[in-house]
Amino acid sequence: MKKSATIYDISEKLNISAATVSRALNNHPKISIKTKELVLATAKELNYKQNTLAQALKSGKTNNVGIIVPYINSNFFSSVIRGIEEELSLHGYHVIICQSHEDVDLERKQLNTLLNAQVDGIFMSVSKTTQDISHIEAAKESNIPIIFFDRKKDIKGTSTVTIDDYKAGFEATEHLIKQGCKKICHLSGDLRLEIYQNRYKGYVDALRENNLRVRKDFIIPIESSIQGGVDAINALWSLPIQPDGIFSASDYAALGACQQLKKQKINIPNDVAIIGFSNEPFTQYMELPISSIDQTPDIMGKISAQVFLEYMNENFSGITIEKKVVLKPKIYIRKSSKRK
Amino acid sequence: MKKSATIYDISEKLNISAATVSRALNNHPKISIKTKELVLATAKELNYKQNTLAQALKSGKTNNVGIIVPYINSNFFSSVIRGIEEELSLHGYHVIICQSHEDVDLERKQLNTLLNAQVDGIFMSVSKTTQDISHIEAAKESNIPIIFFDRKKDIKGTSTVTIDDYKAGFEATEHLIKQGCKKICHLSGDLRLEIYQNRYKGYVDALRENNLRVRKDFIIPIESSIQGGVDAINALWSLPIQPDGIFSASDYAALGACQQLKKQKINIPNDVAIIGFSNEPFTQYMELPISSIDQTPDIMGKISAQVFLEYMNENFSGITIEKKVVLKPKIYIRKSSKRK
Repeated sequence: MKKSATIYDISEKLNISAATVSRALNNHPKISIKTKELVLATAKELNYKQNTLAQALKSGKTNNVGIIVPYINSNFFSSVIRGIEEELSLHGYHVIICQSHEDVDLERKQLNTLLNAQVDGIFMSVSKTTQDISHIEAAKESNIPIIFFDRKKDIKGTSTVTIDDYKAGFEATEHLIKQGCKKICHLSGDLRLEIYQNRYKGYVDALRENNLRVRKDFIIPIESSIQGGVDAINALWSLPIQPDGIFSASDYAALGACQQLKKQKINIPNDVAIIGFSNEPFTQYMELPISSIDQTPDIMGKISAQVFLEYMNENFSGITIEKKVVLKPKIYIRKSSKRK
Repeated sequence: MKKSATIYDISEKLNISAATVSRALNNHPKISIKTKELVLATAKELNYKQNTLAQALKSGKTNNVGIIVPYINSNFFSSVIRGIEEELSLHGYHVIICQSHEDVDLERKQLNTLLNAQVDGIFMSVSKTTQDISHIEAAKESNIPIIFFDRKKDIKGTSTVTIDDYKAGFEATEHLIKQGCKKICHLSGDLRLEIYQNRYKGYVDALRENNLRVRKDFIIPIESSIQGGVDAINALWSLPIQPDGIFSASDYAALGACQQLKKQKINIPNDVAIIGFSNEPFTQYMELPISSIDQTPDIMGKISAQVFLEYMNENFSGITIEKKVVLKPKIYIRKSSKRK
């Protein structure tokens, strides 16, 4: 193992105390700019590398932040992560990513992993199975900012960046109504999660405001997968009455529904109009492009990062921040739901 | 901040020395099973939590591993990561993920972040810009296993898990030849990366073995994006001769090529047959499903994890492992290239 220079090598070379070298390297206000410059130049010359962790234990900062998401293989989560990284890299932060795979036990362990890695902040979107939030409350005691994005929990002292899922559900449903749909069904996500609850509520209220009946058998809980959409169509087409519009809380399920309806020679959008959710890139690639709701994940990531940076600035003056940012969803109307 | 129990609280309660408590918690062979059980039960009762990092500094193990990939938003990389996680979670390891965004400077920093977080091993797929490998060689000095997957570097003492990209390029090209294509072009990736070099060599050799001319102007370097494919078609259709087959090193570029050819009313696969690379899920969703090469990322992940576990076992007996695993690519023939 190649021996790297220590602060003692710098101190010897410059004939100043190791304590002064250490203070200079850590930008201590008591050290003159001239000495700092001299120390930095010598450190560079001797190829001195600060041990980040040792440095962190001293300064309390690693310039690393952690992100916990249910999974990385969706355009939504990977785009939020990208947004956070782009914003934070400008400020010298690096990002460590963990997946919970929708498992609260794994989420708890990943949170501990990040805390033990001495991250300066944690961004998270909780798993479906996260009912007990004691691990997040315990993490708060580490006095580092916790910022929820999309899938949040209301915990005092934490910040949240979400989109208005209620409005998104309302607008998607209203769009179908304006296309002439009267029997609109909803392929709903896991209603234990607030985001899916809100999309569902938006759907119900849009129907009610337009004097359309809310049918219980038209609310189908699905997995966010192609198969989920196929199964939903099979379930719906075994009912006495079939829908003429589908608002799916998942683009993948919307795609599965499209595939299954085409197999049955049902015309989209004229017999059944369809709108999905998340604006996954494939929705536009299709020969029958699928309407969808964009959650502006890049903006969500950037704003989450900005909330973190605010916290880092304010923290020095002892102020606690608790910020709630709600973004506006963007609706993209494509062939799958455009009748005229 | 709630004060948690320390080993001194346990030692006081049981009236044994703190050193004994510490040894019992760390499963020291000199401590009897009876004492270990007693200490663990008391630790649980008093809600004692070991500081993982402090524990790691002692045992040299954190049970965390790090993964560095160019980006997470491709099915290939997220599937390899999933494979690694699935295999390692059975052995109590957690996974931390970092993105290099194809930037060697960022890759260097992420590598340091992981080393400072005291990970037990590193899995990596290098960035396009990684020519200088001194940061990886330096990381080797930490004496933790480094396992490359897909995009490897040949560094003594590290292991690699790759697929046979040469064979994949050869088979894809040969398939197009068997469909009757005589003027096959190649949309190539960044040839600084070995994987793209090998796909390119496979393409060239398949043409030569079948007595077909290798045309320089039929080798188009592209970005792995839809636009990359669109641009390639525009470039090719401004040449005096056009291809009747396309082997793209990227599924996204294959998709862009399909879209642009359709716009020009060129029939796929009869006028131009197309095959992509990576078997991204969207290739099968399309109304015109795209042929592709599957890199078996799940298996690549699992085997990478197994190589790591072997290393962890062998390490105790002082043996160094250097393993080179090469997986077989799987070709999926779909409508975009199937003429009969």
